[in-house]
Amino acid sequence: MKLITAVIKPFKLDEVKAALETAGVKGLTVSEASGYGRQKGHTEVYRGAEYKVDLVPKVRVEVLVDDVDADDVIDAIVKAAQTGKIGDGKVWAVPVDAVVRVRTGETGPEAL
Amino acid sequence: MKLITAVIKPFKLDEVKAALETAGVKGLTVSEASGYGRQKGHTEVYRGAEYKVDLVPKVRVEVLVDDVDADDVIDAIVKAAQTGKIGDGKVWAVPVDAVVRVRTGETGPEAL
Amino acid sequence: MKLITAVIKPFKLDEVKAALETAGVKGLTVSEASGYGRQKGHTEVYRGAEYKVDLVPKVRVEVLVDDVDADDVIDAIVKAAQTGKIGDGKVWAVPVDAVVRVRTGETGPEAL
Ligand SMILES: Nc1ncnc2c1ncn2[C@@H]1O[C@H](COP(=O)(O)OP(=O)(O)OP(=O)(O)O)[C@@H](O)[C@H]1O
Ligand SMILES: Nc1ncnc2c1ncn2[C@@H]1O[C@H](COP(=O)(O)OP(=O)(O)OP(=O)(O)O)[C@@H](O)[C@H]1O
Ligand SMILES: Nc1ncnc2c1ncn2[C@@H]1O[C@H](COP(=O)(O)OP(=O)(O)OP(=O)(O)O)[C@@H](O)[C@H]1O
Ligand SMILES: [Mg+2]
Ligand SMILES: [Mg+2]
Ligand SMILES: [Mg+2]
Repeated sequence: MKLITAVIKPFKLDEVKAALETAGVKGLTVSEASGYGRQKGHTEVYRGAEYKVDLVPKVRVEVLVDDVDADDVIDAIVKAAQTGKIGDGKVWAVPVDAVVRVRTGETGPEAL
Repeated sequence: MKLITAVIKPFKLDEVKAALETAGVKGLTVSEASGYGRQKGHTEVYRGAEYKVDLVPKVRVEVLVDDVDADDVIDAIVKAAQTGKIGDGKVWAVPVDAVVRVRTGETGPEAL
Repeated sequence: MKLITAVIKPFKLDEVKAALETAGVKGLTVSEASGYGRQKGHTEVYRGAEYKVDLVPKVRVEVLVDDVDADDVIDAIVKAAQTGKIGDGKVWAVPVDAVVRVRTGETGPEAL
């Protein structure tokens, strides 16, 4: 299993969620973050205002997936999150050793 | 070492913290999140109100542990977080290559 | 590639950011967290006030780096975050299987 994390533009969250549902994802976790990428010192637009790129507000989306689904899920996120303007985000995948579904105690891919 | 992450019901945080102390855990990190699991489109109860499951508030708990302690710590979290109702949460473990305790510079399991 | 996560004292964020820039890091993600380490039950100072160590406010900094840069980046964070007082923080590194830069679709180390 993999944990896929995406740090995206906040206004893209709904499109990313829709794309993940279409991709068959069963759950996700969302949280607030901020950050910068390669344009530190330049400006990035957020809600119509120009931000000196320091810590621009972003949304983090995390998805636990089966190994075989990881590439498709990453692709779905990237397509949905892309605007073509700087600051569109990063997506990364980390290996997961174990998953448990708390209510049922199920483990492994069945726990997703 | 492993990083164990649990996304649980917020009102279960105190019980999970107590269970982790009993399990001998030396530290933990808490943050806010929201999410959904397999019932997207149905309803989940939070603070007595029914939520159309979209992004229900959850708490994230992260614990760095020695490999040998990982299974016990996961079990302790699962037992403490379980209510038997939908939305009880997910717990997962990721491999950790290195840990440093900032104040002392210690590394590896002694840094936990 | 590695994902380096640091949970540090909030007032140290600017020094850690400066140290990461000096170390050549191209981007980072910041979020809010709270936690405790080994002094649970004792007190830790935050903004001049003593906190019974339970959940003391911290800042989480995450940096995606190339494998060859991981040790230097960890060192830079540790040096910048250190005050010598309890609660200075933890830094850990996790293996990363894949990274994508959303705007360009680049993957791997070029995506950082
Ligand atoms: N190396 C990194 N480590 C951790 N987080 C990063 C890193 N680079 C970017 N991020 C996170 O992703 C967000 C978006 O990054 P961004 O899209 O600006 O990357 P970029 O490489 O500068 O691409 P672009 O040139 O399209 O802006 C940042 O605000 C930050 O939260
Ligand atoms: N596949 C997933 N990836 C990332 N986070 C997830 C995933 N599934 C669930 N979560 C997180 O865990 C929280 C709780 O999930 P939940 O307990 O509803 O899982 P479930 O599989 O639907 O189990 P149940 O049937 O008991 O509700 C969600 O709100 C979300 O934050
Ligand atoms: N085992 C752990 N798992 C997850 N997070 C941890 C762990 N230990 C500490 N943390 C996080 O790091 C923060 C800082 O920890 P802290 O510096 O107090 O560690 P410590 O080992 O007690 O070191 P010190 O003796 O210098 O205080 C905590 O508030 C918590 O958020
Ligand atoms: Mg950028
Ligand atoms: Mg559910
Ligand atoms: Mg401490």
